[in-house]
Amino acid sequence: MGKLKVGILGATGTVGQRFVQLLEDHPWFEVAYLAASERSVGKRYGEACNWKLSTPMPERVRHMTIQEPRPGDFDGRIVFSGLAGDVAGPMEEEFTKAGYAVISNASSYRMAPDVPLLVPEINPDHLSLIDQQRGNRDWKGFIVTNPNCSTIALCLALAPLERSFGVESILVSTMQAVSGAGYPGVPSLDVLGNLVPYIPKEEEKIEEETRKIFGSFSESAIEPHPMQLSAQTTRVPVLEGHTETVFVRLKHSASVDEIKDAMRSYKALPQELGLPSAPERPVVVMEEPDRPQPRLDAEIENGMATVVGRVRPCPLTSAKFVLLGHNTIRGAAGATILNAELLRVQGYFE
Amino acid sequence: MGKLKVGILGATGTVGQRFVQLLEDHPWFEVAYLAASERSVGKRYGEACNWKLSTPMPERVRHMTIQEPRPGDFDGRIVFSGLAGDVAGPMEEEFTKAGYAVISNASSYRMAPDVPLLVPEINPDHLSLIDQQRGNRDWKGFIVTNPNCSTIALCLALAPLERSFGVESILVSTMQAVSGAGYPGVPSLDVLGNLVPYIPKEEEKIEEETRKIFGSFSESAIEPHPMQLSAQTTRVPVLEGHTETVFVRLKHSASVDEIKDAMRSYKALPQELGLPSAPERPVVVMEEPDRPQPRLDAEIENGMATVVGRVRPCPLTSAKFVLLGHNTIRGAAGATILNAELLRVQGYFE
Amino acid sequence: MGKLKVGILGATGTVGQRFVQLLEDHPWFEVAYLAASERSVGKRYGEACNWKLSTPMPERVRHMTIQEPRPGDFDGRIVFSGLAGDVAGPMEEEFTKAGYAVISNASSYRMAPDVPLLVPEINPDHLSLIDQQRGNRDWKGFIVTNPNCSTIALCLALAPLERSFGVESILVSTMQAVSGAGYPGVPSLDVLGNLVPYIPKEEEKIEEETRKIFGSFSESAIEPHPMQLSAQTTRVPVLEGHTETVFVRLKHSASVDEIKDAMRSYKALPQELGLPSAPERPVVVMEEPDRPQPRLDAEIENGMATVVGRVRPCPLTSAKFVLLGHNTIRGAAGATILNAELLRVQGYFE
Amino acid sequence: MGKLKVGILGATGTVGQRFVQLLEDHPWFEVAYLAASERSVGKRYGEACNWKLSTPMPERVRHMTIQEPRPGDFDGRIVFSGLAGDVAGPMEEEFTKAGYAVISNASSYRMAPDVPLLVPEINPDHLSLIDQQRGNRDWKGFIVTNPNCSTIALCLALAPLERSFGVESILVSTMQAVSGAGYPGVPSLDVLGNLVPYIPKEEEKIEEETRKIFGSFSESAIEPHPMQLSAQTTRVPVLEGHTETVFVRLKHSASVDEIKDAMRSYKALPQELGLPSAPERPVVVMEEPDRPQPRLDAEIENGMATVVGRVRPCPLTSAKFVLLGHNTIRGAAGATILNAELLRVQGYFE
Repeated sequence: MGKLKVGILGATGTVGQRFVQLLEDHPWFEVAYLAASERSVGKRYGEACNWKLSTPMPERVRHMTIQEPRPGDFDGRIVFSGLAGDVAGPMEEEFTKAGYAVISNASSYRMAPDVPLLVPEINPDHLSLIDQQRGNRDWKGFIVTNPNCSTIALCLALAPLERSFGVESILVSTMQAVSGAGYPGVPSLDVLGNLVPYIPKEEEKIEEETRKIFGSFSESAIEPHPMQLSAQTTRVPVLEGHTETVFVRLKHSASVDEIKDAMRSYKALPQELGLPSAPERPVVVMEEPDRPQPRLDAEIENGMATVVGRVRPCPLTSAKFVLLGHNTIRGAAGATILNAELLRVQGYFE
Repeated sequence: MGKLKVGILGATGTVGQRFVQLLEDHPWFEVAYLAASERSVGKRYGEACNWKLSTPMPERVRHMTIQEPRPGDFDGRIVFSGLAGDVAGPMEEEFTKAGYAVISNASSYRMAPDVPLLVPEINPDHLSLIDQQRGNRDWKGFIVTNPNCSTIALCLALAPLERSFGVESILVSTMQAVSGAGYPGVPSLDVLGNLVPYIPKEEEKIEEETRKIFGSFSESAIEPHPMQLSAQTTRVPVLEGHTETVFVRLKHSASVDEIKDAMRSYKALPQELGLPSAPERPVVVMEEPDRPQPRLDAEIENGMATVVGRVRPCPLTSAKFVLLGHNTIRGAAGATILNAELLRVQGYFE
Repeated sequence: MGKLKVGILGATGTVGQRFVQLLEDHPWFEVAYLAASERSVGKRYGEACNWKLSTPMPERVRHMTIQEPRPGDFDGRIVFSGLAGDVAGPMEEEFTKAGYAVISNASSYRMAPDVPLLVPEINPDHLSLIDQQRGNRDWKGFIVTNPNCSTIALCLALAPLERSFGVESILVSTMQAVSGAGYPGVPSLDVLGNLVPYIPKEEEKIEEETRKIFGSFSESAIEPHPMQLSAQTTRVPVLEGHTETVFVRLKHSASVDEIKDAMRSYKALPQELGLPSAPERPVVVMEEPDRPQPRLDAEIENGMATVVGRVRPCPLTSAKFVLLGHNTIRGAAGATILNAELLRVQGYFE
Repeated sequence: MGKLKVGILGATGTVGQRFVQLLEDHPWFEVAYLAASERSVGKRYGEACNWKLSTPMPERVRHMTIQEPRPGDFDGRIVFSGLAGDVAGPMEEEFTKAGYAVISNASSYRMAPDVPLLVPEINPDHLSLIDQQRGNRDWKGFIVTNPNCSTIALCLALAPLERSFGVESILVSTMQAVSGAGYPGVPSLDVLGNLVPYIPKEEEKIEEETRKIFGSFSESAIEPHPMQLSAQTTRVPVLEGHTETVFVRLKHSASVDEIKDAMRSYKALPQELGLPSAPERPVVVMEEPDRPQPRLDAEIENGMATVVGRVRPCPLTSAKFVLLGHNTIRGAAGATILNAELLRVQGYFE
């Protein structure tokens, strides 16, 4: 089984750089096409890209030429989209119409009724929506999306609770890293020794996407999960890793130990299939009282897990805890790649 | 009416420095005695104190000699205590026994049944506990305390809600400045580009102190308020100003506008009495979607108010909002001074 | 003597906000005209301006309407320019042609042979260039500039050395605050827990402007001072205050004490004239081994002085020391205002 | 050739943790003994050590028991010392007397005339001092030291210049990471949004150690190199990586290209011997105008190289440039390990 060629839309941005980094030695996919905005077109990736990761830019990609994002120019069939919200929709549609599988990190199509908002550990059955998509629209290809960065970190921690006890409601307060806003993103004057208790549309995304992710697929549509959510979101001076404090009410009561056991023992399809990017432990539980911390713990399981700490009783809900997710790996590029891995195994690229 | 002489216990610490700063031109009190630990005794304040505030050290105090904290040595009757938790209890007791009024920021006596945990805007009637104190103990003086820094910021925001609608329960998640841990306090290696989702004993303080503060005084004791609280507390790389995201359930429903009106119109005894350190507006409500922010807003009302923003409906509780309080002013030294002002007006220093 | 009306070009930017703040209660000048880019035109200042200072926006200005920067629309004669480098030149010229006195913080005209690069403590005689300007060009008004933010902090420290001992050469390495780059300016991803050892054109400005500032005026031109300079400049995660480490070679040898005495006793024309914004001490010398520090010391003398510390012998040059200047006060808006004060006293506005 | 057992003195500290991390899979050495202060003795490393690195603690070491630092208790012959300056001297002497080879990162013996201050790329011949040591003192073992963290980064960059052109003098200004001060080290209140232009004894170390490192060994002593140095040192809010701006005067003039070529082509004994920790390129030269930056570039060559950027002409000296070194790898534990590797190859452990 040879490697599949993949293209990257938005290749020079924060998410695009993570795609390039994470795909460097990927066993199944190979970067064969880099597209970015006009300013970069025609330049070598090494010149055009203001590389901000602390591992070196892969040599092979450094010398590739950046192209205009135009469907006909790429002879592969899969594109990963790291496009920013405002341009993502139309461009992704163009590629889909032209027959590509667009595996997208953008928000444009996440809440579309016929587009899977996929978390392979939680709702692989939602992939059946792809058939609806093809029926509804004049698309030859298809689109699969992954959730917003703060949503997916929360959902991974909720998955074992939903499976074992049922989730009734969630109150969550986030402290999100600046890398979540891309580059140039958050001005240093806003966040040095400061925090900003507002991230546009972020609370809505957490509240809506979560219910779709845990929704049930029936016939031709997703019925959102009835759990109630309320979120407050804040930008803090951290580079990588979104931290969230969670208050959860469960349907069936559970002790702190039962909750931790459910989290620690949680395995799902990606683990069973041994997908290359699947974390061995989708949820890692720490016992130290002052963990997780983004600088120290965001890279656990290569940034593909949610790290939970301080699980403890709550006087008002069933339990409270802290969680941490790597926002540009599992919260973006890594999630997209894991989605593509599942799609490949399930034959969607054949 | 001449100025009253006051002493400062723990004069060189973070809270002690704020006492010195805030009392520089105080109309009623004058710093006449500085006590600190052995290392500093006998030195001029200017030499012994590693001054960390960005306003200059007051000239008069710079030349005062630091003394051993020994009751007999100070010929005034009032001491402000900025002592650290571990040494505060015994030393404050010594001064109280010797007849001083100890107005304390330390946690040692906050939850003692016969000691007022005073917020002049909320529970001035709790001062009647001073009589219990004198009856219960062999103290010639008395102790009055103020709440923990994250507690008081929350309580000021709750006060109008409790008065107008009744508070049933609170879920709160804090993002606290490093100055709250004193000096040297939080190591930079722990908090540069990072956060620590744990502050020892902080959550318990918020949960217990709040109920005492809003408790009702009856005969000889405080009956804690029945409201339920659950807190999660985090240290973030901010210098001054604790930010808190709050979910509140009210007894009587209220619209967002009613909540903001109640907050904005809130006045209480310190405002009526015109106490020198009383904020004109104990609760300031901002309308900008991205405020309050600690670096920009902590000094509103000279750091003596709680600044509230983003009041909005919550799918799970009555409302959610963000608040900010200046942790070393209203959260520490400023609260102590305001308490002393109320005590003076009410004749406790005569 | 009534207040003179002044206009502000670039009123909503970082420097523009400082103008508004510093002019709030100015005894001689009153803000009467606010101009900014198209996006803001027609809006109230309070709406259009993303105010980033921790003192509140002045009430009077909050309600003023922002205008298009067009010479005819302002009936005063003086404009302060906080424009960014790329648009400053043409717009300032337009106002000058129309008869306004343009007191500018922009770099466009600093090195023009007939434009004073004024530091009132150092080269007030350079104002004679204004006559050249009027002769050379078809300008009815005139332009006076102040130096770049890192240059002026250095020059104030050099002034006493030049006067007392003569300066032969300077090697300087800077650590500059992010506010120097305006807003949005430096992305947080670039500077959180990081530094960037490069600021475009900054080293050239220090090296060239300093020689002009200390140059001698003869007949119709400035002869640059023969001192040699070499600079290295770095952006660091500090909000306000540029720190510089300096190695200086003097013409006439001087002891550390003589250098400190010369700095401490330095007074010049603005001090003699008692200009409202003039620092009492243009150079403040600290003795503590670990000072100056930007967070603690940038606001000494209201941010209008250079603060020097660690003056000590150097094995290779005459002495080495550390200096600190407030980059948006004396390094920008405050310098412009002080220049205007001198111009008024010397009759240039009559 | 089996692995040699090594002990670590000061195993739980910042440098000790780096030893544990870097030795995890070392081909020649194996951690067999962990010693730390009383507080930790008897505990498992996993409990006693407040691990601050973002890679996980090695499993094998996690379960090892920490011992009292007492010579008899370790049956190996080599100890790596990560002890803090104040306790290092006496304890290292005790181990040396008892026959151990002490490879130390501490400053106590660096300037002792009969102790090598070893940089394998520069002065491997200084190891002959070990014979002097054994003659002079009643030590059965011996001590070899590595330089201070800011010194070694500078020396690696100077080595090619000294070899190719001769170095006459150096002016250097540093911006040093907080990890250089250990843990708890620098309080966050000192360095958040701030910098401290003073590091005790650091400037002296740079100035003295560099001359010893480049000194010539003759008969029985090191003759310090005659180059002159002057340093200014500053602590900045960066986690890892010391940045330095350097002005250098060479004996024989060289163009910028010749300087970069000399740096890029520099190889020395460790590279020839292929020592396991030797960087392939001891000096890496970057061409991007805004590099090196500590967050992005400190880990180049696994943190064992000095990264140089912005080499350019200087009006006052032969050239100026910026350099970056990883202060806890090549500036501490990594340097000690490389020294041990050279010692092993040269038969000092037989």
